[in-house]
Amino acid sequence: MKALQVDLGARSYPIYVGAGLLGEARWLVPYLAGRQVLIISNDVVAPLYLERARAALEGLAVDTLVLPDGEVYKTLETLERVFDALLEHRHGRDTTLVALGGGVVGDLAGFAAATYQRGVAFIQMPTTLLAQVDSSVGGKTGVNHPLGKNMIGAFHQPRCVVADTDTLRTLDDRQLRAGLAEVIKYGLIRDRQFLDWIEANLARILERDTEALAYAIEQSCRNKAEVVAGDERESGSRALLNLGHTFGHAIETGVGYGEWLHGEAVAAGTCMAADLSQRLGWLSVRDLQRITHLMGRAGLPIGPPPGLGPERFLELMAVDKKVKAGRLRLVLLRRLGEAVVTGDFDPALLRRTLEAA
Amino acid sequence: MKALQVDLGARSYPIYVGAGLLGEARWLVPYLAGRQVLIISNDVVAPLYLERARAALEGLAVDTLVLPDGEVYKTLETLERVFDALLEHRHGRDTTLVALGGGVVGDLAGFAAATYQRGVAFIQMPTTLLAQVDSSVGGKTGVNHPLGKNMIGAFHQPRCVVADTDTLRTLDDRQLRAGLAEVIKYGLIRDRQFLDWIEANLARILERDTEALAYAIEQSCRNKAEVVAGDERESGSRALLNLGHTFGHAIETGVGYGEWLHGEAVAAGTCMAADLSQRLGWLSVRDLQRITHLMGRAGLPIGPPPGLGPERFLELMAVDKKVKAGRLRLVLLRRLGEAVVTGDFDPALLRRTLEAA
Repeated sequence: MKALQVDLGARSYPIYVGAGLLGEARWLVPYLAGRQVLIISNDVVAPLYLERARAALEGLAVDTLVLPDGEVYKTLETLERVFDALLEHRHGRDTTLVALGGGVVGDLAGFAAATYQRGVAFIQMPTTLLAQVDSSVGGKTGVNHPLGKNMIGAFHQPRCVVADTDTLRTLDDRQLRAGLAEVIKYGLIRDRQFLDWIEANLARILERDTEALAYAIEQSCRNKAEVVAGDERESGSRALLNLGHTFGHAIETGVGYGEWLHGEAVAAGTCMAADLSQRLGWLSVRDLQRITHLMGRAGLPIGPPPGLGPERFLELMAVDKKVKAGRLRLVLLRRLGEAVVTGDFDPALLRRTLEAA
Repeated sequence: MKALQVDLGARSYPIYVGAGLLGEARWLVPYLAGRQVLIISNDVVAPLYLERARAALEGLAVDTLVLPDGEVYKTLETLERVFDALLEHRHGRDTTLVALGGGVVGDLAGFAAATYQRGVAFIQMPTTLLAQVDSSVGGKTGVNHPLGKNMIGAFHQPRCVVADTDTLRTLDDRQLRAGLAEVIKYGLIRDRQFLDWIEANLARILERDTEALAYAIEQSCRNKAEVVAGDERESGSRALLNLGHTFGHAIETGVGYGEWLHGEAVAAGTCMAADLSQRLGWLSVRDLQRITHLMGRAGLPIGPPPGLGPERFLELMAVDKKVKAGRLRLVLLRRLGEAVVTGDFDPALLRRTLEAA
């Protein structure tokens, strides 16, 4: 078991990464606010892991809520079902919400925790690679709006994150690859050495070598924890974690939630951000090829779906949360291992990236 | 014009109280986050004051949203309309929401500001006595759930509060009286001198004497600001502001939102809390009579509606946010001018209060 820490003063919390953690009380019970717990999961994960998680909470007042799986359910309507469950079972302000599932369950349960009775405790038990390396850490919670992804939400830090690598055994290949997009992201934006490691060990990861997966998760969480500790509410450097996300969110909204997995959209978006970075003269053609080659080897898309033309893309990107005083800002790569947030680029070059994609 | 300050470190903000403030740019413009503004109002207040508020924001990108008036619309569904408006008009993270109306508009707009793109700026322009003396100050935002009032929400402080006393001229008598319940509350929980002043000046307030109203608002805001500064997120003493609210919320939920005004329910709830305090030997019979007499003179109910029996009352009170480890806690009066939060009372006495009511 590896333990990392997200340093946020009074809101600091541990991340536990390892095999078999899910059924063990000691990673959960010390972080509960009281004796009431609501475990929120989805109909894919619950049959596999819900009883194991519940067993770790024996003797406490545990309720469960199983939601339908999928990004299309990350809505205010589903959120209302969580509030219904909490109030029907009379959960008080000292309850704890436990998110057992992927990014959708984590974001939605976290937002429910942020807003139920103006804020209650919650714990993340991510069961997908994407959630283990990214969405379960850092306190971003929320739901989608038909006009934009994650447009409704709050910052609300979990009490702890328990990433049981055993759960990745049942993860389907497409989901595993989607998670890799975010792993590669850390290498690209701030950790050149990790990028080299990923390139050298990609085959082992895809074969689900336990040790390689655990190392990838640990290094990803370490990078994320460092960034979040430096800028909890994204007033600056935290935005660098969104490499590929402005393009990616446009793809997700444009094709309809759930068609593309988040990680797939981020992979395509990262290649587009790299393309623009190359046009700006920041990356070499060879750097760009290295990125698209790595994404391709990971089985991820390296461009947007056909039919999402430049005009529609620009329209979808205009609602991005990084837009400031009406100006679109993007995370781009200064070089491999170094990202910047900038609105200072020639719009004609962005258009060429969109046309070439 | 009177200026008060809510001291919350980096989240400190001013409260401006006075006549004619609504149409003046100087109380608003310095507190905007950017050039985009969404004014949220309701269909009673908007015809009277929306143009005046909009005129103060000339030259900026101002959108408006007029919601139906009433507590029954303080829901997640109405909240969604605010997000629709923000996204349709492409409001960025540097937008500012302005709440122009009573407590419902303020609570709902504030919660929208707390959760749109994980938090944007907002300004309170309360137009009812209740909102001016209570709900616009302190950062409690939220909406109701069919099973409980204010069960979904967040703490999110405004950038400033602009209370234009001129708006009280068009307020109907019932709304004015409902606001008085919260004014009387400050006297009862922590300001004996103010309580004496209210008793001596009630007739002037009910006649809408400008000077008396301004003084009542100022003293109420000062009391509220002091309490909030000492306990922003209600981990302790702030709960004292909820005198009468546990009983009151049960009445509001029990009779259906909008039947009783919030202030009316609080008035009845305060009399019930006083009744229990007397049964506990903390208030004299004379103290209790003084409270019910003052509420009665203010034209407010001094007990719950018929038909809401003790069983139903206890059931409704069980979802209160102050319930801790399954135990109901109430704000009661130790003496006139001093409140306590306690779960340490004989349930039989509470039952007698409910039966006698």
